[in-house]
Amino acid sequence: MKIRRRKIKIVDPKIIEFIGDQYLDEPSIQLFIYDKNEYIELKDLTVDDIIEFENPDKVYWLNIHGIHDVGIIQNICQKMNIHKLVIQDILDTTQRPKLQEFDDYLFFSVKSILPESSDELETEQISFILGKNYVISFQEKKADHFEHIRQRIREYKGISRERSSEFLLYLLLESIVDNYEETIVSMEGQINKILKLYEDSNPGFTAIHKIEYFKEELFQIKISITPLKESISLLEEGISDFIDEKHEKYFFDIKDHCLYLIDSINSLVQKLESGENFYFSYQGHRMNQVMKTLTVVATIFIPLTFVAGIYGMNFEYIPELTWKWGYFAFWGLIVILFAGMVVYFKMNKWF
Amino acid sequence: MKIRRRKIKIVDPKIIEFIGDQYLDEPSIQLFIYDKNEYIELKDLTVDDIIEFENPDKVYWLNIHGIHDVGIIQNICQKMNIHKLVIQDILDTTQRPKLQEFDDYLFFSVKSILPESSDELETEQISFILGKNYVISFQEKKADHFEHIRQRIREYKGISRERSSEFLLYLLLESIVDNYEETIVSMEGQINKILKLYEDSNPGFTAIHKIEYFKEELFQIKISITPLKESISLLEEGISDFIDEKHEKYFFDIKDHCLYLIDSINSLVQKLESGENFYFSYQGHRMNQVMKTLTVVATIFIPLTFVAGIYGMNFEYIPELTWKWGYFAFWGLIVILFAGMVVYFKMNKWF
Amino acid sequence: MKIRRRKIKIVDPKIIEFIGDQYLDEPSIQLFIYDKNEYIELKDLTVDDIIEFENPDKVYWLNIHGIHDVGIIQNICQKMNIHKLVIQDILDTTQRPKLQEFDDYLFFSVKSILPESSDELETEQISFILGKNYVISFQEKKADHFEHIRQRIREYKGISRERSSEFLLYLLLESIVDNYEETIVSMEGQINKILKLYEDSNPGFTAIHKIEYFKEELFQIKISITPLKESISLLEEGISDFIDEKHEKYFFDIKDHCLYLIDSINSLVQKLESGENFYFSYQGHRMNQVMKTLTVVATIFIPLTFVAGIYGMNFEYIPELTWKWGYFAFWGLIVILFAGMVVYFKMNKWF
Amino acid sequence: MKIRRRKIKIVDPKIIEFIGDQYLDEPSIQLFIYDKNEYIELKDLTVDDIIEFENPDKVYWLNIHGIHDVGIIQNICQKMNIHKLVIQDILDTTQRPKLQEFDDYLFFSVKSILPESSDELETEQISFILGKNYVISFQEKKADHFEHIRQRIREYKGISRERSSEFLLYLLLESIVDNYEETIVSMEGQINKILKLYEDSNPGFTAIHKIEYFKEELFQIKISITPLKESISLLEEGISDFIDEKHEKYFFDIKDHCLYLIDSINSLVQKLESGENFYFSYQGHRMNQVMKTLTVVATIFIPLTFVAGIYGMNFEYIPELTWKWGYFAFWGLIVILFAGMVVYFKMNKWF
Amino acid sequence: MKIRRRKIKIVDPKIIEFIGDQYLDEPSIQLFIYDKNEYIELKDLTVDDIIEFENPDKVYWLNIHGIHDVGIIQNICQKMNIHKLVIQDILDTTQRPKLQEFDDYLFFSVKSILPESSDELETEQISFILGKNYVISFQEKKADHFEHIRQRIREYKGISRERSSEFLLYLLLESIVDNYEETIVSMEGQINKILKLYEDSNPGFTAIHKIEYFKEELFQIKISITPLKESISLLEEGISDFIDEKHEKYFFDIKDHCLYLIDSINSLVQKLESGENFYFSYQGHRMNQVMKTLTVVATIFIPLTFVAGIYGMNFEYIPELTWKWGYFAFWGLIVILFAGMVVYFKMNKWF
Repeated sequence: MKIRRRKIKIVDPKIIEFIGDQYLDEPSIQLFIYDKNEYIELKDLTVDDIIEFENPDKVYWLNIHGIHDVGIIQNICQKMNIHKLVIQDILDTTQRPKLQEFDDYLFFSVKSILPESSDELETEQISFILGKNYVISFQEKKADHFEHIRQRIREYKGISRERSSEFLLYLLLESIVDNYEETIVSMEGQINKILKLYEDSNPGFTAIHKIEYFKEELFQIKISITPLKESISLLEEGISDFIDEKHEKYFFDIKDHCLYLIDSINSLVQKLESGENFYFSYQGHRMNQVMKTLTVVATIFIPLTFVAGIYGMNFEYIPELTWKWGYFAFWGLIVILFAGMVVYFKMNKWF
Repeated sequence: MKIRRRKIKIVDPKIIEFIGDQYLDEPSIQLFIYDKNEYIELKDLTVDDIIEFENPDKVYWLNIHGIHDVGIIQNICQKMNIHKLVIQDILDTTQRPKLQEFDDYLFFSVKSILPESSDELETEQISFILGKNYVISFQEKKADHFEHIRQRIREYKGISRERSSEFLLYLLLESIVDNYEETIVSMEGQINKILKLYEDSNPGFTAIHKIEYFKEELFQIKISITPLKESISLLEEGISDFIDEKHEKYFFDIKDHCLYLIDSINSLVQKLESGENFYFSYQGHRMNQVMKTLTVVATIFIPLTFVAGIYGMNFEYIPELTWKWGYFAFWGLIVILFAGMVVYFKMNKWF
Repeated sequence: MKIRRRKIKIVDPKIIEFIGDQYLDEPSIQLFIYDKNEYIELKDLTVDDIIEFENPDKVYWLNIHGIHDVGIIQNICQKMNIHKLVIQDILDTTQRPKLQEFDDYLFFSVKSILPESSDELETEQISFILGKNYVISFQEKKADHFEHIRQRIREYKGISRERSSEFLLYLLLESIVDNYEETIVSMEGQINKILKLYEDSNPGFTAIHKIEYFKEELFQIKISITPLKESISLLEEGISDFIDEKHEKYFFDIKDHCLYLIDSINSLVQKLESGENFYFSYQGHRMNQVMKTLTVVATIFIPLTFVAGIYGMNFEYIPELTWKWGYFAFWGLIVILFAGMVVYFKMNKWF
Repeated sequence: MKIRRRKIKIVDPKIIEFIGDQYLDEPSIQLFIYDKNEYIELKDLTVDDIIEFENPDKVYWLNIHGIHDVGIIQNICQKMNIHKLVIQDILDTTQRPKLQEFDDYLFFSVKSILPESSDELETEQISFILGKNYVISFQEKKADHFEHIRQRIREYKGISRERSSEFLLYLLLESIVDNYEETIVSMEGQINKILKLYEDSNPGFTAIHKIEYFKEELFQIKISITPLKESISLLEEGISDFIDEKHEKYFFDIKDHCLYLIDSINSLVQKLESGENFYFSYQGHRMNQVMKTLTVVATIFIPLTFVAGIYGMNFEYIPELTWKWGYFAFWGLIVILFAGMVVYFKMNKWF
Repeated sequence: MKIRRRKIKIVDPKIIEFIGDQYLDEPSIQLFIYDKNEYIELKDLTVDDIIEFENPDKVYWLNIHGIHDVGIIQNICQKMNIHKLVIQDILDTTQRPKLQEFDDYLFFSVKSILPESSDELETEQISFILGKNYVISFQEKKADHFEHIRQRIREYKGISRERSSEFLLYLLLESIVDNYEETIVSMEGQINKILKLYEDSNPGFTAIHKIEYFKEELFQIKISITPLKESISLLEEGISDFIDEKHEKYFFDIKDHCLYLIDSINSLVQKLESGENFYFSYQGHRMNQVMKTLTVVATIFIPLTFVAGIYGMNFEYIPELTWKWGYFAFWGLIVILFAGMVVYFKMNKWF
């Protein structure tokens, strides 16, 4: 997960501009209108097709994929009387997640993870505007986080549709937090596999790489979840009139979910650090073993070689050489020295 | 202790579903009704047997073992007018412990440890609903945490029964915290045994494993106790009308108990880290000793071997070889070199 | 200091029970009654001897040594209308230090250290009940923390006696904090001695043990002082009506004293960690020296030995062997190689 | 970045004095006056040229480069009735960034980074005074941070000029934060390059230097940004009457930007520490490899050399030497020993 | 800096006593009386000479050097109606710095550093009593921190004298903070010199000592500055009526100064830890180099020596020995082995 792509915004902040990478050729716009009894689903709209959200008894959910087209985003937002700073926030994918309340709407921006992503974590900025009877969601990439929610609205008439726009926002946010959870659960699996390897065989040198990699990823996820949790805590302090009391419990549930994920991340980091400690202790242990082997062999044979060297000397007069049993006496000496050193090492628990 | 088993909840949060592992074939339901004078104990009830808790002067304690049967839980809760989010929380065993107040009842969910568990820590989610004159407790597993409380109600008429449902909840919570304490005390024993090993003989390489294992377990317990402590702190700030002032002191006692356990955990972790520091310092010390042995032996004998090698050479003219006392002069040289090096090493405190 | 001795309290919390070790055969009870003008001292009382504290102009100080006799403690407390939870707290020597205010009295429990204790830190729980005109103190062990205060009351009429019971409580608490200070000062001396050893000679391998031992002890002391400081901070927030404004400054003085001790502990821990850092760096340095010695000797003599080996070979035709000055040429080669390697090592600052 | 240049200010704080290094020969003063319709730009003013900011409908932006000339700064400030402490703060380039509100103006001082700076980070203190209809900015060095803002005022009539002086201050602050961002982004690039090197080839020993260097730089940047963030948080708490509600959102945007940068710095530091961990683990791994090579070679050949030494001895009677196939038997023994040890090492996974 | 000298205060806290070391033979007392127009300076006063501070339009500054004479301090304080606890605080040089407000005066005690001190940091406790029109300062040692302030009062009539006693207190406190700054700046110089050594040549083993020494000193300074900062923060919360609003900004300036110093200390500690990291990495690197040298030499020459050993054997029949070119073939083999191993090591980047 590479979170830092922000372009240097030394230009006028009043000039609205897209900051990020373009992932889609064309933005696509969908509108979903529903109440308890029926729903209308409109796809591939253009900006001009967007009707006003005039019926207070219906929930309007406008979803935009692709935010690189400044003109479209600006048009939509101006229709809704959205503040210029918010438009800019929507367009800047390097923003820190945040919550801001305005007179007519609440602005919420979060980072989402795509759990299907293979190797590197892929994040996406998703922004929400919550009005009295509408939610507008802006997604950076094609991947659809919300199809199952759409499916639900279509199918279960009496359930997801009974409530107002806040409940829809809750469903959307919860689905993003679920993505985090899925990712963390999948990382937990991979981490456990790596740490398992540690315990069974000797840990490869590159394992430390993987551990550090996961620590970084978890750190990044924590950086993304924490502001989300903080934003919802702001709601808890009652700063917003947009979430009525009946729905607050749902949002607090998301906060609890975030806290649970942060606990899980801390727990995984703890595990990874245990793995590292183990690795370093293993390295030290291994080194000790290697050195002991060398020391035992060298300490035994270097003196013996010296003894052999002595009787290889060519002095004219070396009395031992002419002894009848000299060679066997030599072997006796060698055996005694050898045995003595083995006993010494055994006694000192060297092997 | 494996705390993360949460299934990916990308389904509609409004659809109530059990999240966890099933430990029991059948849920079992018991009802205990008591006042100062008498008690009635009903076992193996079905949902339909559950009567209304209509007598305000009695305390009703409904206990359910096994929460995998969504239908039963839902039936019971709907009878009591419990909020759907709470039902969902009861059924989701991956929840973070929490406290939530509603108009008619207080919802409390905690993690409990089974202290009898042999090797791996086993946790269980236990949820409570505290009403005016009743407590409903939901236990995930068969193991009964509360038999001694039941026993008490049966036996001591004047003591546990004199008070209302809050006091029953206090007894139930305190008994869960006691389980934590028992577990920590038992871990302390094991930890002390491991650390004792360290001090007496040389620590085996796998000891670091055990240390890291205990650090992780303690971390998990801390993660479970901390939200419980926070929940009771919320009570302290007076957010609840369900705990009257007279009983608050009891709940604060539980908080003090939690704080004491957290202190104990920190203290144990500190000890384990001391053990690790000691292990690493021991490893380094051991290495130093091994290397010193090697160095002393090699440094003494390698030069001596060289000297022996010289007089093993076959040059036609090596004057020393023909000296009468050449061989003994050689030995003299060897002894001098040997003694010199031994003295040198002694002076430098190598052994 | 072993702080964790708590028995598993799975029994009914309403059944009052002693939790701890018994240090005394018999509890002993003393009563001290004084005002500005006179004092009465009563020793070895029985529970029945305890009179009512009816004179509002006198200060009654009831001190109990030995709290293992539940009956006695319960009798005394019931006479004073002390809450059951408090009685339980007094009897449970594993409690975390705490402050609790009741309608008629203030309950304060602290941990005290016996500074005279030789090797292992010995702690003791001391509980206080502060009423309008009385203080009751419960000490676990025989060791008397308060004799000097008693002495003072006897001697200086106009000083300690002029004030009310709060001032007596202040004296008692301050004397406990002074015990902590004495202990820390004595530990500082021992720590400085150990760290001195480090700087002068080479640190023994067991020094790390002592360092870790002191770190643990200091951690335990911090755990004991911190709740005391917190309790007095609660007083500062004005939660108590028992300490009148005139005396608050005295209690804040105790808090400042605690803060000073915590600063001192942090400072000592910092020192000990410096010592550890030094030890590990010394270990590494030592290893480097050992390895350098080995490497220098081996690197010089192994090639020389090889050269000697060559001229020890028995090839029929080795021209050098028959040279007239072959042996001396060999020595020349050896000297050149030797000198070259010494120069090389010198240049690379190996010794 | 060297932040500590403060001279010892033991002189009277009432005596105004420049504290810092002089970077410019002459201070230069520019004045920019604009409203929605027109702008006037005055360069190279002297103090006497500065007119009063009397037209409430215009925004006056007075910018001073070079603050070493105490007389000039003092003259300007006294014209505006600026408090002596503020003048002193402007002149002391070693100040911690701060915000102070006065009756007629708001004083803001920040540290700015010059992103173009090649090797060492170069910081500069920039102070602002925000009045009803004016902003005065004091820059220490020649480098102009604000040319693009001036350019904007000249060009886009309807945009930057429509608002009052607060908006100008926002633009100036945002541009300073952008400098931080540019610097951090550029450091990220360099850090990634270093860490890349780690992963591909073996990390050079000096890499640890670079890592530590970057950790220090990031720490310095954090120290500079944090007080800026804190100052704006003070605005959020509504302490100031100078920022009207309409513009507060802009300032909060700067705070969010700072938080984002702090997140980024933490994330980079995390990465660098990963790099260090990797380096140390690599070092250990490398050592293990080196030692294994040595041990394998020495363990194989030292015993073999001993065997060869034996048959190089000159005992008169060594039976093996006269065997017909003695030499070949010797080779057989060597091969067996060699193969045995290789198999042994293979089995123990030494290579 | 040795901060812990506190004697065990188990005596009656009501008995006033000097706690500390005596640095002066005789206390010396000076009185300075000034207003806008004139000043009177009185030296070497006795207690009886001290007049009452009766003129509300003048500022009285009473300074006492040497606080070991309890009688004198007590006399002075009683004249001013100072609380007994304050007298005790003045006399106890082991106090933690603190601020306490009383009805008629404000008590401020701080630790001061003597920057001229050569090797070990020397601290001194300085206490202040701020009344309506007077400041009393108590200095422990002879060294005069305040001569330059006295000088200022004498010289600049219109500046330091125009204000009331608060302004004098500000000058005195600021001068103490300046001492800290001077000390830190001087330490920075020494630290940079040590760390420079690290980068250029190989760090000596004792460098770690110096680093740890500086870390400890900085920690001690932080412990001394922090309570000073906290005290002034209390003023900021408006708890005092003694500092009027006009002067508050001056005191906040001191707080900013303290914050700046704490930032600087943190930054230096960071640097020192970088130095340590570098040292340990250098140690590891050095070890790697040493081991590589040994391994390369041993790995090359041990097998070669073995080969030479073979042809030194005395088997009756070793065919190679009788070959005509045997010796030269041997050399060929040696060269090939040697070259092979060198190539192998080169390929593996061993040197």
